[in-house]
Amino acid sequence: MDQGGTERVWPVSEPQGQQDQFDVIAMGRIGVDLYPLQTGVPLAEVESFGKFLGGSATNVAVAAARLGRRTAVITRTGADPFGTYLHQALREFGVDDRWVTEVAGLPTPVTFCEIFPPDDFPLYFYRQPKAPDLEIRPDELDLQAVRAARVFWMTGTGLSEQPSRDATLTALAARDRAGLTVFDLDWRPTFWKKGAWKKGAWKKGAWNEEPRPYYEQALAHATVAVGNLEECEIATGARDPLDAARKLLDRGVELAVVKQGPKGVLALNSKGESAEVPPVPVEVVNGLGAGDAFGGALCHGLLAGWELERIMRYANAAGAIVASRLACSSAMPYPHEVEAVL
Amino acid sequence: MDQGGTERVWPVSEPQGQQDQFDVIAMGRIGVDLYPLQTGVPLAEVESFGKFLGGSATNVAVAAARLGRRTAVITRTGADPFGTYLHQALREFGVDDRWVTEVAGLPTPVTFCEIFPPDDFPLYFYRQPKAPDLEIRPDELDLQAVRAARVFWMTGTGLSEQPSRDATLTALAARDRAGLTVFDLDWRPTFWKKGAWKKGAWKKGAWNEEPRPYYEQALAHATVAVGNLEECEIATGARDPLDAARKLLDRGVELAVVKQGPKGVLALNSKGESAEVPPVPVEVVNGLGAGDAFGGALCHGLLAGWELERIMRYANAAGAIVASRLACSSAMPYPHEVEAVL
Repeated sequence: MDQGGTERVWPVSEPQGQQDQFDVIAMGRIGVDLYPLQTGVPLAEVESFGKFLGGSATNVAVAAARLGRRTAVITRTGADPFGTYLHQALREFGVDDRWVTEVAGLPTPVTFCEIFPPDDFPLYFYRQPKAPDLEIRPDELDLQAVRAARVFWMTGTGLSEQPSRDATLTALAARDRAGLTVFDLDWRPTFWKKGAWKKGAWKKGAWNEEPRPYYEQALAHATVAVGNLEECEIATGARDPLDAARKLLDRGVELAVVKQGPKGVLALNSKGESAEVPPVPVEVVNGLGAGDAFGGALCHGLLAGWELERIMRYANAAGAIVASRLACSSAMPYPHEVEAVL
Repeated sequence: MDQGGTERVWPVSEPQGQQDQFDVIAMGRIGVDLYPLQTGVPLAEVESFGKFLGGSATNVAVAAARLGRRTAVITRTGADPFGTYLHQALREFGVDDRWVTEVAGLPTPVTFCEIFPPDDFPLYFYRQPKAPDLEIRPDELDLQAVRAARVFWMTGTGLSEQPSRDATLTALAARDRAGLTVFDLDWRPTFWKKGAWKKGAWKKGAWNEEPRPYYEQALAHATVAVGNLEECEIATGARDPLDAARKLLDRGVELAVVKQGPKGVLALNSKGESAEVPPVPVEVVNGLGAGDAFGGALCHGLLAGWELERIMRYANAAGAIVASRLACSSAMPYPHEVEAVL
C-alpha cells in the first residue's frame, strides 16, 4: 500500500499485463427506469413516461464512464426486448456489456418513480418473481477480470438472494482485497422479503431476512464502504455518522464514506484522515441517481489518487448535478460539468 | 324467452325492481397499459410511453359505456398509485368502480406492447407474483347485482387461477342463465402457467394447466360465447369456425360468435340463424383493444335487440375503429363514430 507521502491518499494497486483490465467493474442491478415526463404530480396524473437505462450498479458504471473511465458491468437481463434495449444503452454509454447475460423466463425489471421535489421520490419496482440480476451465478464470473479491475464495485442488493449472494462473495474473495474493492451498502428492505405472496397479503416481516451477517462477510473483503445513514446502520448497528464510519473501519475497510443527506458527506480512512463536506446547493428536480453519480465520481477520484477532501467534493458535485436533472443514467455529468460546479 | 317473431333475435330478460341494475357488469382483468408513443419500432427504440387504463374485461366495460350503456367492473388492483389511477380512469370513462377493491402486497399490473402494424402487437405483461384481479373472491361478490345485470361479461383468464376461478363460477351460477351471460373465451397461455420460476428457466409446459374443463363448466352457465379461432379451439377442440360455433351451441350457449381475423366474424344462434360478416377495411395502427371494442359493441347490440347481422356489423365496425387508433380504452368509439363507418 502506498505510504510514500504523495498527494495520493488512496493506494491503487495496478496489476500488470492485463490486456482487458477495466478501471471499474460494477456488479449488481440493471433494469428499465420509467420516469414521469410530468413532475410534481402523483403517478395517477402522469400521462407519459420516458424510458431510461437504470439500476444502481449500472448507473455507477455509466457515471464512471462519463468521467472517462473504462467500465463494465456484471449483471443479467430478461430474454426480451427490454433486455435488448439495455445492451444497446450500455454500449451507447460506453459501458462494456460482455458480462451481461440473459435469463430465460424472467422479465427484465422495470421501475417507476414518482417525482415530488425536493425530497420525495418513491420507487415502484416490478422485479417479480425474481430479478434476473439476482440470478448471477458464481460459475459465470470471469474471476481473472474481476481480480484485475482497478475498482470492483458491488452492492448490498446483490447479497439479498441466491445465487447472486454466492456470486458476489465469490467475486469479493477472488479480489483478495486487491486495488479498490467498494461495497455500496445499498439496502432496500423490499428486496430482502422472502417467500411467495399468499392469501391476500404479504405477511409483513415474515420473510425479512437479516442482512447484517452477509454485510459483515462482504465488509471483510472490501477496502471501501459507502452508504447513507440507514444503510450504515444496517451494516454496523450504528446510526451516528462518525460512530458508523469507525465501525466500518473496524470491520476491515480502509475508507468509510457516510452520506448524510442534507448534512453532506463524512469520509474517514484507516490512516486517521477525515473529510466532511457540505452538500452542494442545487434546485432538486429528481433525487434518484444522485447517489450513483456520487459513486461513479468516487471511483474516478480514488483512481486519480486525489486527496480525500477533493474526492468528496467532486463526488458531491456530481451527485448534485444529477439531482438537478430529470434523468439518471443519461444525466451523469462529464468532467467539465463537475468542474464547473466546483 | 322471446319467440314472438319480432325484430329482436336475442331475448333479453329484464329483472324488475332493481334500483342498481347495470346494463353491463364485466368481471376480469384490469391494469395499466403502457403503449409506445413511437410506433413501428421495437421496444428498444421506443423513447416514451403513454399510460392508459387497460385489461380486457375493463376495456369491454369502457366500450359499452361509450355506447351509452350503464356499466360496472368487478376487479381488483394493487394498493398503490397505479391502483388510484385506475379508479380515477374508470370514473372518467363513466364505468362504476364500486366493486374494484385493493389487494395489499400485489402490485397493480402493467403491460407493455410493441406496435408493428398491421398485425404484430406483442404484449409484455408484468403480473407477477400474481395479478390482483386473480384475487377476486367469491365472498366479495354482490351476487344480487350480478344477477340483476342485463349483461354479465366474464373471461377465460378469470378461470386461470384461484380464487378468481371460484368467484367467476359462483357469479355464473348466481346468474342462473338470466338475461345475457357472456363468456369471452379470452385465452392467454402465459396466464395458465403454474408454479414458481426455478433454476434459470421456466419448465416449458410443466405448469400449463388444462383450461378446457373450466371452460366447459363456464359454458354450461353462459348464454353467449365469443372468441377467436384459437380460443374456440381451446374451448371446444374444434378449429373450423362453423364446427367450433356448433360445438359452443352444443355446450349450452344460445349464441356463438367466432372472430376469424381477416376472414371476418361468424355468428350462429340456437334458433339456427347465422350471420357472417366481412372485416371492415381499415388502416391498422394498433390491433390491441379491437376485440374489446367488438365485445362492448356486442353487448350494446344484444341489449338493443337488433338482428344478428346488424349486431355483428356494428361490433365489427367498432373493432375496426379501435384498430385504426393508437390507444385502447380511450379509443373506444361513440355511437356516431360507429354509424359513420357503417
